[in-house]
Amino acid sequence: MLDGRTRMFGIVGDPIAQVLAPATLNPIFAARGLNAAVVPMQVAVADFDRFMDGFKRLKNFHGLIVTVPHKVAVLRHLDRLGPRTAKVGSSNLVRREADGRFLGDITDGLGHVAALRQVGFAPAGRSALVVGAGGVGAAIAGALIEAGARVVLSDVEPGKAEALAKRLGCASGAADPRGFNLISNATPMGMAPGDPLPFDANLLTAEQFVGEVITKPPRSPLLQAAAARGCRCTTGRMMVEAQAELMADFLTVHLS
Amino acid sequence: MLDGRTRMFGIVGDPIAQVLAPATLNPIFAARGLNAAVVPMQVAVADFDRFMDGFKRLKNFHGLIVTVPHKVAVLRHLDRLGPRTAKVGSSNLVRREADGRFLGDITDGLGHVAALRQVGFAPAGRSALVVGAGGVGAAIAGALIEAGARVVLSDVEPGKAEALAKRLGCASGAADPRGFNLISNATPMGMAPGDPLPFDANLLTAEQFVGEVITKPPRSPLLQAAAARGCRCTTGRMMVEAQAELMADFLTVHLS
Repeated sequence: MLDGRTRMFGIVGDPIAQVLAPATLNPIFAARGLNAAVVPMQVAVADFDRFMDGFKRLKNFHGLIVTVPHKVAVLRHLDRLGPRTAKVGSSNLVRREADGRFLGDITDGLGHVAALRQVGFAPAGRSALVVGAGGVGAAIAGALIEAGARVVLSDVEPGKAEALAKRLGCASGAADPRGFNLISNATPMGMAPGDPLPFDANLLTAEQFVGEVITKPPRSPLLQAAAARGCRCTTGRMMVEAQAELMADFLTVHLS
Repeated sequence: MLDGRTRMFGIVGDPIAQVLAPATLNPIFAARGLNAAVVPMQVAVADFDRFMDGFKRLKNFHGLIVTVPHKVAVLRHLDRLGPRTAKVGSSNLVRREADGRFLGDITDGLGHVAALRQVGFAPAGRSALVVGAGGVGAAIAGALIEAGARVVLSDVEPGKAEALAKRLGCASGAADPRGFNLISNATPMGMAPGDPLPFDANLLTAEQFVGEVITKPPRSPLLQAAAARGCRCTTGRMMVEAQAELMADFLTVHLS
């Protein structure tokens, strides 16, 4: 129940209708006895800088969840970066610190890896293809590397995967799933009807794991194709739920 | 239950903890079958212009309730003004129109008069002293004049009541309650512990009506003093509740 004393957080993205954070985080806050809430904030790319300038002036907003397409752009508005954020080059979480400065961190990769562990994927020593070298792809690749996987990055935009791979200290290559233990989709392909698959799902085999980041539709075309070929899969929803508690911890650390 | 599809509205003010709009309007939206919510937004005077610039870029925020101290400042951010707003010179309601422009209106005065009618005060032909010539005072004076009362405005700031009285076509004078049928407090005096009363309550007599705008504390020092002298009173809460349905109508007219 919102009132004037509710400690507010935003989730900023575009589109916004598909975000799960309000529905997943608000019950966690309530269960912890906090009068706090996450609200959706839809902002276009061209408007993001002016939105952030306004957002920082909201005295009762204590932080922000950042989603597509703002996870890289948000970095220039932050005063401090957590160690993962600095390496990965994107941020999905922003918190106002006690001194009024804004700190960024990223949990996307941690949530994705936690979801994969739930379906039996242990990253250490395994090979992983991460398709999409944007903010989410960087976070997932970073978390997989941290967990001991050998990662190859791929992106349709020339040079994008190569640049990120260099920063993270991993390899880059084509979006060809053959031979990998895990293939994770970190592109938005599948959100819009008629999107092409992020890679050729006909090449998947049953012993492979497939990780998905998309939450709407709940079973993306890629997940349907991968399941049909016998792969063990994680959904965008599983990733979101796995990281919800981590996000609540980060956002509310200064609240009582 | 907030989710990514919730149509959002803000209530902007400073302080913000005392605002009742989220708790009163959100159940009205729910009762009307709308997935919509009002959230508190605390912004300092010095930050208001940059906040408004950012707010207008929120594609899923469809309007704004404006409270102290921003009701006059908001006018310079509006594209169109309702007839009452233009006359009164302040706005407590802002709505994004179908063409993307922002329209301002004001219901403060209407809610205050509706609450007074509930306790038996009929404005037509009666005399009223309105103490405080800021945004709320202007709205209340405007609504009382519209309802047929003879209004005198008063303000501690030299020239402020005179200027507003000239615009509204009424009188101005000292904050002396003697001889008036109604005395309405439209100042924030009474919100902070130790505030002086907005006028000398020892001069009140039992046949007078007293209107209050403050919602926190629920029974302000003025209301306590007026009740002790036998006056019939309206609280800030009564004013808020009386205008809640009017506000919901205005804000959601373009939603389905």
